[in-house]
Amino acid sequence: MKDILNVGIIGAGRIGKVHAATLAYRIPAARVLAVADVDLAAAQALAAKHQIPCASADHRDVLNNPDIEAVLICSATDTHARFTEEAALAGKHIFCEKPIALDLAEIDRTLATVAQAGVKLQVGFNRRFDANFRRVRRAVESGEIGQPALLHIISRDPAPPPIAYVKVSGGMFLDMTIHDFDMARYLVGAEVDEVYTQAAVTVDPAIGEAGDVDTALIVLRFADGVIGTIDNCRRATYGYDQRVEILGSKGSIATGNNYPNAAVVSDAASVRRDLPLNFFMDRYTESFAVEVAAFVDAVLHDKPVPVGGTDARVSVAIGLAAARSHREGRPVKVREMG
Amino acid sequence: MKDILNVGIIGAGRIGKVHAATLAYRIPAARVLAVADVDLAAAQALAAKHQIPCASADHRDVLNNPDIEAVLICSATDTHARFTEEAALAGKHIFCEKPIALDLAEIDRTLATVAQAGVKLQVGFNRRFDANFRRVRRAVESGEIGQPALLHIISRDPAPPPIAYVKVSGGMFLDMTIHDFDMARYLVGAEVDEVYTQAAVTVDPAIGEAGDVDTALIVLRFADGVIGTIDNCRRATYGYDQRVEILGSKGSIATGNNYPNAAVVSDAASVRRDLPLNFFMDRYTESFAVEVAAFVDAVLHDKPVPVGGTDARVSVAIGLAAARSHREGRPVKVREMG
Amino acid sequence: MKDILNVGIIGAGRIGKVHAATLAYRIPAARVLAVADVDLAAAQALAAKHQIPCASADHRDVLNNPDIEAVLICSATDTHARFTEEAALAGKHIFCEKPIALDLAEIDRTLATVAQAGVKLQVGFNRRFDANFRRVRRAVESGEIGQPALLHIISRDPAPPPIAYVKVSGGMFLDMTIHDFDMARYLVGAEVDEVYTQAAVTVDPAIGEAGDVDTALIVLRFADGVIGTIDNCRRATYGYDQRVEILGSKGSIATGNNYPNAAVVSDAASVRRDLPLNFFMDRYTESFAVEVAAFVDAVLHDKPVPVGGTDARVSVAIGLAAARSHREGRPVKVREMG
Amino acid sequence: MKDILNVGIIGAGRIGKVHAATLAYRIPAARVLAVADVDLAAAQALAAKHQIPCASADHRDVLNNPDIEAVLICSATDTHARFTEEAALAGKHIFCEKPIALDLAEIDRTLATVAQAGVKLQVGFNRRFDANFRRVRRAVESGEIGQPALLHIISRDPAPPPIAYVKVSGGMFLDMTIHDFDMARYLVGAEVDEVYTQAAVTVDPAIGEAGDVDTALIVLRFADGVIGTIDNCRRATYGYDQRVEILGSKGSIATGNNYPNAAVVSDAASVRRDLPLNFFMDRYTESFAVEVAAFVDAVLHDKPVPVGGTDARVSVAIGLAAARSHREGRPVKVREMG
Repeated sequence: MKDILNVGIIGAGRIGKVHAATLAYRIPAARVLAVADVDLAAAQALAAKHQIPCASADHRDVLNNPDIEAVLICSATDTHARFTEEAALAGKHIFCEKPIALDLAEIDRTLATVAQAGVKLQVGFNRRFDANFRRVRRAVESGEIGQPALLHIISRDPAPPPIAYVKVSGGMFLDMTIHDFDMARYLVGAEVDEVYTQAAVTVDPAIGEAGDVDTALIVLRFADGVIGTIDNCRRATYGYDQRVEILGSKGSIATGNNYPNAAVVSDAASVRRDLPLNFFMDRYTESFAVEVAAFVDAVLHDKPVPVGGTDARVSVAIGLAAARSHREGRPVKVREMG
Repeated sequence: MKDILNVGIIGAGRIGKVHAATLAYRIPAARVLAVADVDLAAAQALAAKHQIPCASADHRDVLNNPDIEAVLICSATDTHARFTEEAALAGKHIFCEKPIALDLAEIDRTLATVAQAGVKLQVGFNRRFDANFRRVRRAVESGEIGQPALLHIISRDPAPPPIAYVKVSGGMFLDMTIHDFDMARYLVGAEVDEVYTQAAVTVDPAIGEAGDVDTALIVLRFADGVIGTIDNCRRATYGYDQRVEILGSKGSIATGNNYPNAAVVSDAASVRRDLPLNFFMDRYTESFAVEVAAFVDAVLHDKPVPVGGTDARVSVAIGLAAARSHREGRPVKVREMG
Repeated sequence: MKDILNVGIIGAGRIGKVHAATLAYRIPAARVLAVADVDLAAAQALAAKHQIPCASADHRDVLNNPDIEAVLICSATDTHARFTEEAALAGKHIFCEKPIALDLAEIDRTLATVAQAGVKLQVGFNRRFDANFRRVRRAVESGEIGQPALLHIISRDPAPPPIAYVKVSGGMFLDMTIHDFDMARYLVGAEVDEVYTQAAVTVDPAIGEAGDVDTALIVLRFADGVIGTIDNCRRATYGYDQRVEILGSKGSIATGNNYPNAAVVSDAASVRRDLPLNFFMDRYTESFAVEVAAFVDAVLHDKPVPVGGTDARVSVAIGLAAARSHREGRPVKVREMG
Repeated sequence: MKDILNVGIIGAGRIGKVHAATLAYRIPAARVLAVADVDLAAAQALAAKHQIPCASADHRDVLNNPDIEAVLICSATDTHARFTEEAALAGKHIFCEKPIALDLAEIDRTLATVAQAGVKLQVGFNRRFDANFRRVRRAVESGEIGQPALLHIISRDPAPPPIAYVKVSGGMFLDMTIHDFDMARYLVGAEVDEVYTQAAVTVDPAIGEAGDVDTALIVLRFADGVIGTIDNCRRATYGYDQRVEILGSKGSIATGNNYPNAAVVSDAASVRRDLPLNFFMDRYTESFAVEVAAFVDAVLHDKPVPVGGTDARVSVAIGLAAARSHREGRPVKVREMG
């Protein structure tokens, strides 16, 4: 058993920086040997910050480095599948940000390559590693609330992304809800059989003009009979709203939001708290660190990764079904998507 | 303007007793002159308890009493339409427990009779008078949370009713959810255009054998674009769960449950509260009193009743649409129901 | 055993009206036969409202009424002792608002008269009958939190009373804190041995000019070693603040305030609730009804009253000790007060 | 302006490890050049873990290192004053864990040496850097709650320390309450004038036999008239209880505890949360990192330290006054302590 995992990072953007900092400061068992970004200056800046020996504009410099055993793919979404395939062919274990691709055939091809290469592939559904949602999963797994019957996920952003982003995002169901589809499967521990979508544009007409929606309610019917809902909105004025609730035969469990402090102010106007954490990087800070630690641990000790390629594929399939349900105004079986 | 309203009560069962006590103890502006119940002993007991001068086994003794200006119809559901028509023909103002009937044609006939008679008809959707839900409605009406986009109603009973009751209840959508359909319309202030139902039997197989469901998730699409859900279950082990939440363009409002006290116990096991109020009569005590006071006030001062015959009809129409959606596995327009 | 208790009320002011309404509407086992008030019009108005047969300007008309078995003394504080003695001599059972008197010798004389007459005397410490505080007492009595070690009472008024009232109130310790002294004894179930007071004028200098304080922290040392504090302030901008907390060897119990609804609003400014109930009559509505019901029950069924003359005496003794501690700047034994 | 501060650590025990990790992982602007501990193996282990170049059994090896500009004194309490003086004489800036000493004369001598040397001295009152308490301080400073009138601090440990520790701790007031004295001064922004203590042994008789108490209520009278209390107990079965509350002329602010998650479970027994964080290192993790970052920042950019030598002295003086109040059963002026 090795003690230290040598890692490379592809992509020095927002999430690449987060993972680099985690590896540098919080995971003594990992060492970052190289970082690549099409923006060489970004790669160099990140390398300088964390004493990473190599910085490059070419991701192949990471993949060809024989000392590197595992890579984190944090580049643009449309490169995920290709880089994952290349990394697999180079024999590297892979942590890839979600989604691998928005096309099921492309995902299938990628997963086949990964399987053939015999490397590990973990997908970046970080929310599974959040303390609140882990607690909910534990309540289900342990039988604390009995057999689940009804699930609700509320997942609202503080404010919509730029329209330019919306246009290339693949649509809200594949860009935003995809996290919630994975969360639903994770919490219930069963597969989604059928999806029904009601969606609207209530936040910004420009989102509608871009062919997308900004407000949605998706009903999930699980194979084991559980009924779930996902509530999405691109705007919650009060902050980042991330809650789940499950009713089971023995009881329920519900999570609240996370706050910057536990203070309550009472005055002549109201009894109030400060707003919940507003930015996903603040809200999910810990989960990003824990998921990368889990990946490093899985590779170093040859354990199964906690979130695999199938999880990536299924979430996309549900997202495609949700989009079809919205287009066609009817419930859609996930298996219709192929 | 009169000072005192003379009232008769038809039905001395559970809800008849509640209204009689309210009239006797909490509404000085009303006086109960007669009570009727097919079970004469029940009528007599109630009369004795509150010094009501007349008790009878025949509801016509109430309707024929010339001193009585208004009647409360608290008898079995299958008598509501008939007694309402008879009361209208007798020129009495009417407070009728919900539902008037489970059949739209019967409701229409009844409402026509009421309209022709020119009497007032208030329907017993008591929850509109609950302090929590009134506060939510106020937040919508006042613009405090902006334009509503998403609504959630959670409405769960502590435990299922007897199977004998389930068999004659008209089904969960017309028996239990009907309150939530009315609540949804009341809170949003718009009409429901389309309904989609996912339902299951998770509590008691005998309920399924009786042809009903005990767990449901209903999606409402309102005419103004608001998307809503209703979560119903016949069993919540922790008590009577009655909550709503609305997300609007400026913010959200959410209600919690009502508790018997505001104490929190912390020990080596947990930080906890006692269970929420378990029984609908405890949870909604105040709302029953306020709705009857509002009826008395509307009659005495010739104001519009706060919940009318149309509200009764529409809730049944939505319930029938929800049941059809469940049977046919597709979204159903409320107007399909006629 | 009798079924109905005939009652008279002396004093038709604020609290007299509350008790009259309770007796009229909520306690079928009681009947009010007479009401007296030095302001005859007030007595007559109250009599008219609740169909009380006799109204008088002279309390002796109540005491001399042979049909009356019990009286509620709701008149001005400086008449409590005298009327209690007169009622005892007339053989009536007595419910007397707190305090009986502010002078221990006067209280002792009154209690001696009551004892000699063999009538029951209950004192109006209504807060003992509040659901929150009863729950706390139950946690102590049942051993749920083990042996108490530390007690905190927070008792703050929304706004100070008029200066004219302050001047005749007997001082904050005997006017306001007296409720908390009784609550402390009730919750802990032990006697207070020593008192230490820190007090100040922070709300209104005019209160200081009237020789009183408006802000105080009182430390109680109980005979069984429990240490307690009472936090009093004549102004809490957010409403009526009434909380207690006890730490015991097995855990703690703490109560929150009571609110008009259970709604939470989240917007761009804060996550907030409406203010807690602001007026003591709203906050303690139920407790006023329950204490009178308990009195009626104790008299009708010859049970011990739940709050007796000793409770009234001891609270005054602690209040006098608290005032002395404040004057002399040292801890004071309650037994120093006689 | 320099970019990197070279630091030495004296003491490789519990808190030394925490600060070393903070410096290694979270403060890029600091570099640890040496660590010393009388237990050489402990120093070496810590050095190995964080790539610290020098490990020694002699603190003078740290103080004599000419590259080191600042030292963190994390050694046993009885060495704090001596090491602080030595470090000052060596011209190092100093971060010293609380307390510097338990004797005012010794503190004064140490502070004089520090002043003469012209180095910075920050004292380890980490709680000032906690998000909850910072929020409270901000509410006071900004005028959000107006002029403070009443302050309450609740500070309870989950379980008592070993008796061996109790015996050398200096007593609860100087070991545990000292944090709360500092917090009280920090939150109110004024000095404590007088102290009154009620204390008891309720947790473990062995603590009493060791001459200490385990349960206390301390009343603080501030120079500006604010009245405060500190509630201390060596045992709270439900976890580490760290709360404050301030009532001001415009409103109040109160903090709750910190929890491992925001989940609520409801079942047939209760509505409950998991226990609050139990261990001070979990509860105050962030505050330890923030205080060290503030120290590094103050030294690097020649700013005033946020918690200085006077703060250390005053807290000890209040602690000695609290102990005397307990011994003598009377309020004690802090200035009596010299």
